[in-house]
Amino acid sequence: MNREKEKISIKQIAELAKVSVATVSRVINQKGRFSSETEKKVLDIIERYNYKPSMIARGLRTNESKTVGIIMPDITNEFFSSIVRELEIQLFSLGYTAFICNTDESEETEKKYYWDLLSKAVDGFICISGRVKNEQDFDLAPTVFIDREIQNNDKSIVVASDNYEGGYLATSEMIRSGCKKIAILMDKRSISTSNDRYSGYKKALKKFGIELDKKLVRKVYPINYSTAKSEVEKMIKEKIEFDGIFAITDWMALGVTDALRNEGYKVPQNVKVVGFDNISISKFSSLPITTISQNVELLAQKSVELLMDLIAGEKVQRKTYIIPVSLVKRESC
Amino acid sequence: MNREKEKISIKQIAELAKVSVATVSRVINQKGRFSSETEKKVLDIIERYNYKPSMIARGLRTNESKTVGIIMPDITNEFFSSIVRELEIQLFSLGYTAFICNTDESEETEKKYYWDLLSKAVDGFICISGRVKNEQDFDLAPTVFIDREIQNNDKSIVVASDNYEGGYLATSEMIRSGCKKIAILMDKRSISTSNDRYSGYKKALKKFGIELDKKLVRKVYPINYSTAKSEVEKMIKEKIEFDGIFAITDWMALGVTDALRNEGYKVPQNVKVVGFDNISISKFSSLPITTISQNVELLAQKSVELLMDLIAGEKVQRKTYIIPVSLVKRESC
Repeated sequence: MNREKEKISIKQIAELAKVSVATVSRVINQKGRFSSETEKKVLDIIERYNYKPSMIARGLRTNESKTVGIIMPDITNEFFSSIVRELEIQLFSLGYTAFICNTDESEETEKKYYWDLLSKAVDGFICISGRVKNEQDFDLAPTVFIDREIQNNDKSIVVASDNYEGGYLATSEMIRSGCKKIAILMDKRSISTSNDRYSGYKKALKKFGIELDKKLVRKVYPINYSTAKSEVEKMIKEKIEFDGIFAITDWMALGVTDALRNEGYKVPQNVKVVGFDNISISKFSSLPITTISQNVELLAQKSVELLMDLIAGEKVQRKTYIIPVSLVKRESC
Repeated sequence: MNREKEKISIKQIAELAKVSVATVSRVINQKGRFSSETEKKVLDIIERYNYKPSMIARGLRTNESKTVGIIMPDITNEFFSSIVRELEIQLFSLGYTAFICNTDESEETEKKYYWDLLSKAVDGFICISGRVKNEQDFDLAPTVFIDREIQNNDKSIVVASDNYEGGYLATSEMIRSGCKKIAILMDKRSISTSNDRYSGYKKALKKFGIELDKKLVRKVYPINYSTAKSEVEKMIKEKIEFDGIFAITDWMALGVTDALRNEGYKVPQNVKVVGFDNISISKFSSLPITTISQNVELLAQKSVELLMDLIAGEKVQRKTYIIPVSLVKRESC
């Protein structure tokens, strides 16, 4: 047996086949998406060089620990846990173990977990970050951010839903349904997901010739069922007029509809409501909520692909990769 | 300064105070439950021996890595993720980092994660196990099981809800509301949570003089919204008569009520439904579901307490620790 031939690496296969390392892994493991043309190219090279995938898969010939740290802000939020589940499945199919850490939206916890995971020699990170400031301490290992952009950091690799388009779609739908005074419930913190959805909201108002009314821009923290419910009760008490509410999460939308119905408003007859995320509760709640669906599978797939390239030492363009969203029409608007 | 005095360990403090290590940690961190009497005892010893808790908390004087592995079966199931969130908060307050692994109910994945976590030198495990057989390979580190008992293993330390009582409460409630033909939707696999809820169901039938009808005992796998929905559709097709359904999870109960209502049955007028878990969906669904509430906080607290004792080398009684449950009355029964 030619020992030279055994020594080809997964990275070299990727180079020879002119595809990414993640694609090679997908072909080897027969999981995820790849064309039959790509498959043939990769398999030909593997055969020609007598490559033994199982040895690489076990990390025996590399310094890799074959582990990835996933940092998430809230394990009980179905949107985040769905992404993490997808990530975990895809990483596992590539021979990687995922260690998940839940920060409960605490910056302090996030930092501690980052260092603890680093000390366990993970090969890289996928971070769904609750942090608003970039403190440069995610530079010590390959890292891909999901969902939330780190401010002032043009060096980050981010995979995010098209939140701007989502805000635009949600607001346009309400305007087309007759709304003229649309409130937005957003995050008090300066977080890109919230800010981008707000920008989309403003774009829709502008396009349809509706002036922005600052009284209708409501910032809360934390963003959840209770704070959204309280904020709507407050708006009603303050006698602020509105005929539509865009809540930037489904849980907030649920708080909004409950507050409205408790106060005697009919949804969608008196007030229309649109949420964001398309989690189960928006489908099964007593008033099914019109919402913006994020493509969890694609968010996970793109993130894993980029991380694999980073870990393999490939050149990856440092930018925000945008995943499309879509409107899901239900009964609240 | 007396160097001897500095060297007292958290374990020695526990011994001197005649309390568990976890209790000492709780007093030091002022988190969780302890009596004022216990607090005084612990603080007196700490003062007498000039104990520096922060040094222990950072693991500087021990061989501990101050990390715990949490193995969970399904991160997108709110019941599991709520427990994990509680565990993580309590472990963090004791200076521990929690690495969470999601097995997606796969035995193979669970095994791999166990070994990967072991190789990262975690101090112990809290395992919410989807496995039905005990293969003795959880013996290599201190381990506490939550929710699901491992069969044929009298050496395991398990913290579980009172599933037997839960099944009894659910079924009794339906009988008291007039049901005479109560079906149960349970797990096809032999899992203790499912089996225990079934035993409680049988006990209630017996107590009220209702004979067990095997046609009404319906086993499905996996246990979720879709399989429960299909099973009810099947029962209707097979013209099996029933006036109540006890579903062993809330997601299954939701599938049951949707199937019934699609087929023209009124809930609770024609058929009464009770679920289990008390997750958000049971509260916010279009028909709020009567359910059995598990005490997530206590499940987590007891598990962490036992694990801390195990890690500290304390003697822990190997048995199943039972946490009480309660009935939450809503509209489906």
